[in-house]
Amino acid sequence: MNLVILTNQDRVGKDRYVLTDHRATHIREVLKGHAGATVEVGLVDGPVGTAAIELTDDRQVVLSCSDWCEAPIPRLTVDLVCAIPRPKTLRKVLILAATMGVRCVHFVRANRTEKSYLQSPWLNPEQQLPFLLIGLSQGRQTRLPEVNVWPLFRPFVEDTFPDRENREGVLSVKLLCDPGSDIRLTDLDINWCGVRFVVAIGPEGGWVPFETGLLEKAGFQRFSIGPWTLRVETAVAAALAQLGLVSGKDK
Amino acid sequence: MNLVILTNQDRVGKDRYVLTDHRATHIREVLKGHAGATVEVGLVDGPVGTAAIELTDDRQVVLSCSDWCEAPIPRLTVDLVCAIPRPKTLRKVLILAATMGVRCVHFVRANRTEKSYLQSPWLNPEQQLPFLLIGLSQGRQTRLPEVNVWPLFRPFVEDTFPDRENREGVLSVKLLCDPGSDIRLTDLDINWCGVRFVVAIGPEGGWVPFETGLLEKAGFQRFSIGPWTLRVETAVAAALAQLGLVSGKDK
Repeated sequence: MNLVILTNQDRVGKDRYVLTDHRATHIREVLKGHAGATVEVGLVDGPVGTAAIELTDDRQVVLSCSDWCEAPIPRLTVDLVCAIPRPKTLRKVLILAATMGVRCVHFVRANRTEKSYLQSPWLNPEQQLPFLLIGLSQGRQTRLPEVNVWPLFRPFVEDTFPDRENREGVLSVKLLCDPGSDIRLTDLDINWCGVRFVVAIGPEGGWVPFETGLLEKAGFQRFSIGPWTLRVETAVAAALAQLGLVSGKDK
Repeated sequence: MNLVILTNQDRVGKDRYVLTDHRATHIREVLKGHAGATVEVGLVDGPVGTAAIELTDDRQVVLSCSDWCEAPIPRLTVDLVCAIPRPKTLRKVLILAATMGVRCVHFVRANRTEKSYLQSPWLNPEQQLPFLLIGLSQGRQTRLPEVNVWPLFRPFVEDTFPDRENREGVLSVKLLCDPGSDIRLTDLDINWCGVRFVVAIGPEGGWVPFETGLLEKAGFQRFSIGPWTLRVETAVAAALAQLGLVSGKDK
């Protein structure tokens, strides 16, 4: 836990937060926190800061948080479109997305999404939150990604997604991860500065041609991460890392 | 299993390989292989190819492999220096290294390597092989990474590592992953073509200044993957992905 993430539910007074769950245990047992010591904290969708430990006992840790960092909270610029993967992988993608500062994750049912994956408990928003918080805490991030689940591929790509972009008045650079392509991100003729990005990662076994066809029609450009066949969660990390590298320092 | 990896131990005749383990189960149950069908195979440290299934029953799958790809087996150019991580992470790093075509992994004890990690069964070469094979199979690679374990940091960095490079007559580009740096790979003044690379990934909590100092003295240049704090295995994937991107297409 690189940053103790606080939510409004933890708040009991102006600057006072009470933790009673695994975060309290972590502060006591891993950070060896005691009254008077400080810990690094981050407020969900808010700033990071330093909290003073007021009290720690078996049941709770009470923090006093008034020392917030003045720097602006980063705006996030990368969205992820991800074929609904097996449940364990979905959990890993949620954690990674939060760790690596993804703005919005769209899980979409792909042709190679197995039917059983749709029963995954982690497609349920309430069940996603703990994993998103783990990710924020790991990555020292505070912005909670928006997570959407789209059970129909074609309407998502043809209607929902473009409608959302129109409504937001954003025209993003759209990228489609395709292990069969020999185009690298650096080969693409793109102005990388200050733009919103969307990167689409297929299921195990890849998108089917019908899907890549629809994505290309919707403006997604193919690229290859490299000459490897990666697991979904590795592809997500690798694609976000490459995108971060080419799109400048303010990611 | 994207490629069924064969070893010399599986070989029972000129072109014939007999599988009795999880690979046989995979061919029967996942690939639905039957006599007369074909599967994609790769020979450890050798070519990839297409094998014909001669026979499949409850106990074994017999393959006939004579259709090998003529393309040269890629030479690998990236070495990884990795602080010995917790056992579960070590296993993941082994898999990733094989998946992403790492030539040689040096696990080295760092100041922040917990003592208990040195008891990890996966520091033992025989126990590493299954995970390396999983990685090759995932990444469609056939080159088995060399794996070394160095219990002393300073002699490794000051003597062992430079001695190895001298002996091999290789002068590599050496990189040091440092989350605190604001230098990106693309900021470094490096001729990326046809070179050997070494990338060093620290432990959870990072290298201590003594260690980064020694690494820098040994020629390692700092860079940051991005503004995130990543888990060790994610940092490995992200660093290899970025290195693959900047160092051209023939990785």
